[in-house]
Amino acid sequence: MEYKKIKDFDLNERVDSFFIIKELDVRTASNGKKFADLTLSDDSGDINAKIWDFNEEKNDLNENTIVKIRGDVSEWQGKHQLKIIRIRNINDDDDVNINDFVQSAPLESEDMYETILKYIDDMENEDIKKLTQYMIEENKEKLLYYPAAKSNHHSIKGGLLYHIVRMLYTGESLAKIYDYINKDLLYAGIILHDMAKLDEMNSNELGIVSEYTDEGQLLGHLIQGIKNISRASEKLEIDSEVSLLIEHMILSHHYNPEWGSPKKPMIPEGELLHYIDNIDAKMYDMEKELKELEDNEFTASIWTLDRRRLYKSSL
Amino acid sequence: MEYKKIKDFDLNERVDSFFIIKELDVRTASNGKKFADLTLSDDSGDINAKIWDFNEEKNDLNENTIVKIRGDVSEWQGKHQLKIIRIRNINDDDDVNINDFVQSAPLESEDMYETILKYIDDMENEDIKKLTQYMIEENKEKLLYYPAAKSNHHSIKGGLLYHIVRMLYTGESLAKIYDYINKDLLYAGIILHDMAKLDEMNSNELGIVSEYTDEGQLLGHLIQGIKNISRASEKLEIDSEVSLLIEHMILSHHYNPEWGSPKKPMIPEGELLHYIDNIDAKMYDMEKELKELEDNEFTASIWTLDRRRLYKSSL
Amino acid sequence: MEYKKIKDFDLNERVDSFFIIKELDVRTASNGKKFADLTLSDDSGDINAKIWDFNEEKNDLNENTIVKIRGDVSEWQGKHQLKIIRIRNINDDDDVNINDFVQSAPLESEDMYETILKYIDDMENEDIKKLTQYMIEENKEKLLYYPAAKSNHHSIKGGLLYHIVRMLYTGESLAKIYDYINKDLLYAGIILHDMAKLDEMNSNELGIVSEYTDEGQLLGHLIQGIKNISRASEKLEIDSEVSLLIEHMILSHHYNPEWGSPKKPMIPEGELLHYIDNIDAKMYDMEKELKELEDNEFTASIWTLDRRRLYKSSL
Amino acid sequence: MEYKKIKDFDLNERVDSFFIIKELDVRTASNGKKFADLTLSDDSGDINAKIWDFNEEKNDLNENTIVKIRGDVSEWQGKHQLKIIRIRNINDDDDVNINDFVQSAPLESEDMYETILKYIDDMENEDIKKLTQYMIEENKEKLLYYPAAKSNHHSIKGGLLYHIVRMLYTGESLAKIYDYINKDLLYAGIILHDMAKLDEMNSNELGIVSEYTDEGQLLGHLIQGIKNISRASEKLEIDSEVSLLIEHMILSHHYNPEWGSPKKPMIPEGELLHYIDNIDAKMYDMEKELKELEDNEFTASIWTLDRRRLYKSSL
Amino acid sequence: MEYKKIKDFDLNERVDSFFIIKELDVRTASNGKKFADLTLSDDSGDINAKIWDFNEEKNDLNENTIVKIRGDVSEWQGKHQLKIIRIRNINDDDDVNINDFVQSAPLESEDMYETILKYIDDMENEDIKKLTQYMIEENKEKLLYYPAAKSNHHSIKGGLLYHIVRMLYTGESLAKIYDYINKDLLYAGIILHDMAKLDEMNSNELGIVSEYTDEGQLLGHLIQGIKNISRASEKLEIDSEVSLLIEHMILSHHYNPEWGSPKKPMIPEGELLHYIDNIDAKMYDMEKELKELEDNEFTASIWTLDRRRLYKSSL
Amino acid sequence: MEYKKIKDFDLNERVDSFFIIKELDVRTASNGKKFADLTLSDDSGDINAKIWDFNEEKNDLNENTIVKIRGDVSEWQGKHQLKIIRIRNINDDDDVNINDFVQSAPLESEDMYETILKYIDDMENEDIKKLTQYMIEENKEKLLYYPAAKSNHHSIKGGLLYHIVRMLYTGESLAKIYDYINKDLLYAGIILHDMAKLDEMNSNELGIVSEYTDEGQLLGHLIQGIKNISRASEKLEIDSEVSLLIEHMILSHHYNPEWGSPKKPMIPEGELLHYIDNIDAKMYDMEKELKELEDNEFTASIWTLDRRRLYKSSL
Repeated sequence: MEYKKIKDFDLNERVDSFFIIKELDVRTASNGKKFADLTLSDDSGDINAKIWDFNEEKNDLNENTIVKIRGDVSEWQGKHQLKIIRIRNINDDDDVNINDFVQSAPLESEDMYETILKYIDDMENEDIKKLTQYMIEENKEKLLYYPAAKSNHHSIKGGLLYHIVRMLYTGESLAKIYDYINKDLLYAGIILHDMAKLDEMNSNELGIVSEYTDEGQLLGHLIQGIKNISRASEKLEIDSEVSLLIEHMILSHHYNPEWGSPKKPMIPEGELLHYIDNIDAKMYDMEKELKELEDNEFTASIWTLDRRRLYKSSL
Repeated sequence: MEYKKIKDFDLNERVDSFFIIKELDVRTASNGKKFADLTLSDDSGDINAKIWDFNEEKNDLNENTIVKIRGDVSEWQGKHQLKIIRIRNINDDDDVNINDFVQSAPLESEDMYETILKYIDDMENEDIKKLTQYMIEENKEKLLYYPAAKSNHHSIKGGLLYHIVRMLYTGESLAKIYDYINKDLLYAGIILHDMAKLDEMNSNELGIVSEYTDEGQLLGHLIQGIKNISRASEKLEIDSEVSLLIEHMILSHHYNPEWGSPKKPMIPEGELLHYIDNIDAKMYDMEKELKELEDNEFTASIWTLDRRRLYKSSL
Repeated sequence: MEYKKIKDFDLNERVDSFFIIKELDVRTASNGKKFADLTLSDDSGDINAKIWDFNEEKNDLNENTIVKIRGDVSEWQGKHQLKIIRIRNINDDDDVNINDFVQSAPLESEDMYETILKYIDDMENEDIKKLTQYMIEENKEKLLYYPAAKSNHHSIKGGLLYHIVRMLYTGESLAKIYDYINKDLLYAGIILHDMAKLDEMNSNELGIVSEYTDEGQLLGHLIQGIKNISRASEKLEIDSEVSLLIEHMILSHHYNPEWGSPKKPMIPEGELLHYIDNIDAKMYDMEKELKELEDNEFTASIWTLDRRRLYKSSL
Repeated sequence: MEYKKIKDFDLNERVDSFFIIKELDVRTASNGKKFADLTLSDDSGDINAKIWDFNEEKNDLNENTIVKIRGDVSEWQGKHQLKIIRIRNINDDDDVNINDFVQSAPLESEDMYETILKYIDDMENEDIKKLTQYMIEENKEKLLYYPAAKSNHHSIKGGLLYHIVRMLYTGESLAKIYDYINKDLLYAGIILHDMAKLDEMNSNELGIVSEYTDEGQLLGHLIQGIKNISRASEKLEIDSEVSLLIEHMILSHHYNPEWGSPKKPMIPEGELLHYIDNIDAKMYDMEKELKELEDNEFTASIWTLDRRRLYKSSL
Repeated sequence: MEYKKIKDFDLNERVDSFFIIKELDVRTASNGKKFADLTLSDDSGDINAKIWDFNEEKNDLNENTIVKIRGDVSEWQGKHQLKIIRIRNINDDDDVNINDFVQSAPLESEDMYETILKYIDDMENEDIKKLTQYMIEENKEKLLYYPAAKSNHHSIKGGLLYHIVRMLYTGESLAKIYDYINKDLLYAGIILHDMAKLDEMNSNELGIVSEYTDEGQLLGHLIQGIKNISRASEKLEIDSEVSLLIEHMILSHHYNPEWGSPKKPMIPEGELLHYIDNIDAKMYDMEKELKELEDNEFTASIWTLDRRRLYKSSL
Repeated sequence: MEYKKIKDFDLNERVDSFFIIKELDVRTASNGKKFADLTLSDDSGDINAKIWDFNEEKNDLNENTIVKIRGDVSEWQGKHQLKIIRIRNINDDDDVNINDFVQSAPLESEDMYETILKYIDDMENEDIKKLTQYMIEENKEKLLYYPAAKSNHHSIKGGLLYHIVRMLYTGESLAKIYDYINKDLLYAGIILHDMAKLDEMNSNELGIVSEYTDEGQLLGHLIQGIKNISRASEKLEIDSEVSLLIEHMILSHHYNPEWGSPKKPMIPEGELLHYIDNIDAKMYDMEKELKELEDNEFTASIWTLDRRRLYKSSL
């Protein structure tokens, strides 16, 4: 049987399908009754859903599990919402595989990992190469499924790898146009800039982040990333200029103090890293927002894009 | 006879050579005497120069002419400076050609112009194509020599064309990676975003800008550019969505209100335009600054790069 | 029969009366039931109203139509609110005229239009006069009913004309005190500064704005206004300094980049325009807020007045 | 004999005339020699002047005295400058009167004072009237010559009175247009808002300010003004709402915290006071700057006008 | 009988106890029904509580009175909340004393008052001593119960005295380390800096603030405090430098214009006052927030601490 | 023979004495001649000095050496300046000891070091103690002479130790008043917060900093400090919460992103560290500025104190 996907829902239709519960909060409505506020997802997207008059004892629901749901599609602030009529956990008869419900990067994680290795193979500076290779191999297991963020850009399984790979493609093009830069340094910066997101957030193997770690909150991934490079460089006896410049690139890639970087890039490779990172994040978010839109329409104001509204042209 | 170029000057050496006077100001020193403060240039770079105890009546000097100079190379705030001992205007015997003294883009203007035409030829949307072609042909004469700025990035002969061409290369790469965007719109935005700099500044055919125009001061090139697109679109009967989106891209390409854009990009092509523009400007400025630096050194604080110091690695 | 006006409602009383539905949103309450959230208005003011347990199929309600309502007046955050008990569309027996329910400027639109024409008649500079006259005549139809804003100051029928006329009165006084300025330029700036609000918003003939236009969102009324002046000036062959200065005044009248003006006024007429515009907007908003207040009381924090609270003195 | 006035100086001409020394600083030039840096003025304007190789012992010069000077008019950063060749103090034979050299308001101080009294006479609220009258009579002596600022707008003899009077004219016009405000309160605010400038600065009877007082530095004229109102109100037993609102108007008339006002106006009379004050200051400064300019020219960037350049149109 | 205190509530338990109603708002839920939103308190802390389906006629509840309540403890955004099942006003049989329900400073008010007097006794400068003594004696009655704020730090009975006393302790330590400062001035600044909070807010004798006064809103406690010092100094004939410096310390103790201080401290005693004040406020708030937290946990984002989350370590 | 100290110089007097050359720059004056711009110091203070018509070949001067000078004391912008008439390097006959010319902390370095060890001895948490002890012993050699800054607060020999010791005294007092904090953590934070200034700057043994290191420029002492703690903690097997919290305190002690801290303190010990650090820096700077001032005078505007002017009272 064919189940309708979230991205294909029509307003006011009734749907019967399977979803992952990505987030689950039980709240008290202003009439004093409990309701459940859920984020459901399948591999086509996310949808907010509600269970009114929710009875916690009767419903044994858990985040990151699959449920079967009957519900009605309504609309809230320009987005679809699902009013759940029936919900139950899956059983063996349902014959569903959780991986079919997870939003993932459009490329296979192993392939993306291999792509990165190829960029490393081509490096000429032995210290940059050794350090980058060490870092990526040490972190391979988590890298294969980690998203690049909790809820913003690339918050999908394999999202971090996908972010890195697309940045490498852009980096390669720009290194040809602005050929005075050090290509190895740029690639190393791209590969390592967000690596400590693996320490900053706790993600399960579906690429869903439950929370920030203590280190994530108290230091953040820039500082934690520098600590990781510093310790690895000591161990591998990396040339001190190499480790210093990579640490500087990590430190400065958010560019502005109020975005988390106490220093601005002082080398052109760091400057490029910042722009390449930003482009990939923004292009990802915009694509996601515009996908849901009709031609000649504006989105609502989008928080992560500076509260801008986006326009989808018919051109 | 071989004349030494500015970029090859050594500290404390005496030079005899030809230069263009790019800027000339006569000032009163704090001892009450006149001195001349000059910016000299040849095709290898610029240098600040001084004539102490300057006698305006005896020296008939003019901006944008070539002079023969004898001087001593000193240093001021980490940059070379020339103390002029003798200076005279050239005469027929000198056999020098002004074009040999002008800093120009590394590509031929006509070639760059042709490159742009090729990108226009490949456009599929007829309205975008017609409008872009019209604008570039209308402005061909000035385009062939205009710089992209009075004193910042690409302030060289043919600098505006060079800026556009390198942005088109980047745009082409990014349009492959983020293939949901409208390529025609992006290319048109790149080609047209700074076109009204031709109205904003007065440049001579050497690519040297003497001043901003009234329109440059009272409106600026973003607004003037929109007026130009608006009038051309009316004349060519361009589809209103095409002209509106191109006007929006021009309006938003400086991104922030305090940088001159009252609107942020609301379409992904505008978002990319902003980043591509910024990358080309920053990479140009950084290359120029680093060229003068020894390995493992820092520049002084650079005004146009947010007062950052840059570092030149030995990697 | 005499119907009670909104401004005369008392807390806890029951009212039976006619109103315009200015805004209508159907929402889902946190108990999962639908409710209707309305803005009702008559010619004395606006009031928020609710229909609980709203049944969309049974109630065929539309914005900008008149309804008869029975409801109870309650209070929410220091303002009256109406809990609707009965609601129906009007029929022929009701004998009500929609114009009696519309908040309008205190002066007749045709009179205000004539007042503006008189200021134009007195202009001495023929180009300023011709351009201003052309613009106002071209836009006469919409001008007669357009408000000056969607929801802020002067968001009433004829509000834009009323805004212009009061600004002209102030401008006339100031032109006597600061008599070195060009009076024609100031008056033209006042008359034309917001004219492109006619393009920025879609208003019905009741002066109620439903939405911003694409041009409003992507360019805004400052830029659209400049385009309009630019095209009209080309057509009428207006002296280029005249059109440039009027465009500059439109561009700079919001004064600060973060309020939408990339340039600050560079002529005294533009400086005055900014202040006169601001005074009229602020005095309108303050009058409206204080009207509802008792002596010796403070309003709640007002969003459009920088979150200030206002005080109504008994003096 | 007719002496040439500062505003009539031509570039490169030699002048012999009398001036007031408004400011005098002896500095060491970068050649180690002393020079005198002066601001000279007559009743037509100010000019910067230099005496090179200055010998303090030989020249017994003092601020706020008249000197006879021979000098050459040069130019510095777009403004005239005088290179002094000969300078001496005046003697009895010179037959010059210091009052002929002082820049003064275009109206007689006594007349302006009378104008203000007339506005007070017309007040209806007895407490406002009594308090305002008391304050102005207490301060009459200084008011007759004090400027409104040390070096910005209205820094001329009688400048404070002139500032008040022009503000009253504007206030009277606006009180007719926005007739819901309390006219007495507005006039009192206008008359009293800057009164404590008399305590903030030390001015001589020529209207030239030498320095800020301790109270000026440690509290400023807003706070000192409130203290003065508070003490006077206690003495005169003024109605507490009257004194509170006037103190609030003084406190809020700079409008923004970073301009010195911890509170924004919470009454419409305070809002108007702010705008009227700003208009008069800006119109004064702009008139002064534009007076020196040719048609179709831009000034240099002006510090007190947010670093704007102004344009003088030929219209 | 032993009643459970708020700080000892466990999630999901049922409690029967007495509380003060600190705040009471009747609101309309989004189902159209009324509910009561209360802040309850006893001497151990505060808790938010709700009465669903609230009937105003049947329940005669008033702020600042004691009620007996039965309710269930739930959780909302990481904090306990009470769902009220039964509520009634107390009667004589209940035998409860309101003072047992009031959160108070951990020290006795009379003792704290005496402590302050001792610091005053030790002052050497007679004018500082006389002025400080006068101010504190004049305000003794209110001082004994006033909190230091409406809802932020030290919003408890006697909170203002407690704030002053702890600041004096810190001040005494710092005056030993930085012994070049004037100790008398520092102590006077500490004792007087917030004294006009007595005029800014209306507090009942339980230390609960109902509202800001007109003076609080229109001037604020800094300006009102300066007026009070100014009038007292006139009356007591205090040396003008003493009163000026104390006024300056009051004016500058919020340090930044956007926090309410138009001047920054220009004397070291004022600089210290600012830091001592800030330390005491922050340490109070942090202690309060951390008290409710388990080891190794983070609070939610805290508005009054710049939206930071706090961490409670297990060290 | 007794030599006059810098702090005792009188205006216009001639002095013959020994000084350290702390900074030496050779510049070209605007008359085209070279001059030397020096900062001279002895143990009483610094003074700016000039040698006009400077001949580099004849004068073999070096920074951080002692010279004998004859000069005249003049004044520049409210500060003394020395015009050098004769200058020569010292020889053996001069019998001067460089340590007599160095500004040093008022306490002996060894004593201050011992004081810190005592605070460490008293720590109860073994991990905090071990880590802090290790760090201070590893860095003992440099600590004994390093200043706390290149040119701001505590830029004297032993300045870093002095800064730490005075902060410990304040910390001890505050830990008694706010006794819920972890004293060990606070002391460790105080001792370690600026330790990486030893890596950030290159200082000679006189406590004079010549330049920032590459790590100082590219990372800064906060990030470098975290790297040092991270590596030491790994080596000493420090409990991970201890090292994480100390790293967090180092990271957050500048408090605001624009001052270099990407995170604000999330523990009260970090909050206190920030204030204690700030108090010591400000009190040091203010003491230094006020020392040079007469009673009842204002300093000029001071860059490092937010351009404030300070006032020295006579109280």
